[in-house]
Amino acid sequence: MRSYRETFDVCTRRKREVVDITETIRQACRGSGVRDGLCLVFPHHTSSAVYVSDSDRHLTDDLLDALARAVPEGEGYAHNRVDPKMNAEAHLMAVLAGHHILLPVSDGDLDLGLYQTIYYAEFDGCRPKGVLVKVVGE
Amino acid sequence: MRSYRETFDVCTRRKREVVDITETIRQACRGSGVRDGLCLVFPHHTSSAVYVSDSDRHLTDDLLDALARAVPEGEGYAHNRVDPKMNAEAHLMAVLAGHHILLPVSDGDLDLGLYQTIYYAEFDGCRPKGVLVKVVGE
Amino acid sequence: MRSYRETFDVCTRRKREVVDITETIRQACRGSGVRDGLCLVFPHHTSSAVYVSDSDRHLTDDLLDALARAVPEGEGYAHNRVDPKMNAEAHLMAVLAGHHILLPVSDGDLDLGLYQTIYYAEFDGCRPKGVLVKVVGE
Repeated sequence: MRSYRETFDVCTRRKREVVDITETIRQACRGSGVRDGLCLVFPHHTSSAVYVSDSDRHLTDDLLDALARAVPEGEGYAHNRVDPKMNAEAHLMAVLAGHHILLPVSDGDLDLGLYQTIYYAEFDGCRPKGVLVKVVGE
Repeated sequence: MRSYRETFDVCTRRKREVVDITETIRQACRGSGVRDGLCLVFPHHTSSAVYVSDSDRHLTDDLLDALARAVPEGEGYAHNRVDPKMNAEAHLMAVLAGHHILLPVSDGDLDLGLYQTIYYAEFDGCRPKGVLVKVVGE
Repeated sequence: MRSYRETFDVCTRRKREVVDITETIRQACRGSGVRDGLCLVFPHHTSSAVYVSDSDRHLTDDLLDALARAVPEGEGYAHNRVDPKMNAEAHLMAVLAGHHILLPVSDGDLDLGLYQTIYYAEFDGCRPKGVLVKVVGE
């Protein structure tokens, strides 16, 4: 069995922003030496999510809007009363969108559908956030 | 280490429909030759979700209703303005319900609880959609 | 390849309650004999979720509130009309929060970020619920 570990940083310009990380994950996967297995993409922070979706920039805006409707500002979140710098909204959005993903690896490459794109969604950005890629297989 | 890959198609009659795929996944798992490991169920499309839930047809209707409340029609989604055939609602529902799942495999079979059923939720159906099953283990 | 399986029970005092299970998962992982691989945390029930989030008790209350807004009581769920003891709300919350998680294992330990905590969210508690931990790797 072969196991590969890599981390990279994402630093967004806006507090909430969605970044296409498909190529970064694809390169990690190809460089891992794993031909058949599984690739875990796991942010080392709790105010970010990773998800697979259709390749369209407008759709990423739609997702941020949908999450803002589900987790509206000013709901009197208990977490934010502890410290005004806290960001309950960001953590709740990460849980609803899904924190990490697992991708299939076949023939030494990501085994994705034609339009599948890997997105990193940042909900509390403007500083570097580490993302772990772990590939396990043979 | 052993690795197994299989794909199958789901073609629903309705645009939004939930299908019980437990037996298909169980047969793939049993035929994989893996006795202990992990089974990834990964749709190759971005307008479908896979999830584990209680075995009751009424509950699948409740989930479609809950997702329609979270992602209502006519919100002016940016994705749909690009092309009226686009379906932002379907993609957003897939992210909220969760696109893929990972199942435990023990003693050559799915290691599920008594009432756990595996569902494929289609949000943009009426055409064949591929689903990948990848089993990794020993 | 090495594979390890363990189950443990969670029994909450309240119907809806969130429990920090980080230490239980960490001990299972350390005892598994796997140095590099993946750790699946998979409840054997469909009215519970497992997720990774920031370490703060107030935030767990915020999550329960957010889920109660997304899945309000008294929506006339079809599942509950079958049997008044049924609990559609619990099953829907589990799907939205995410039923299971996959954690990276490196150097024989959980490979988490500094503030990442593993939570078990119960939506239909007051009785023992089994949770499966499956560690696969080398």
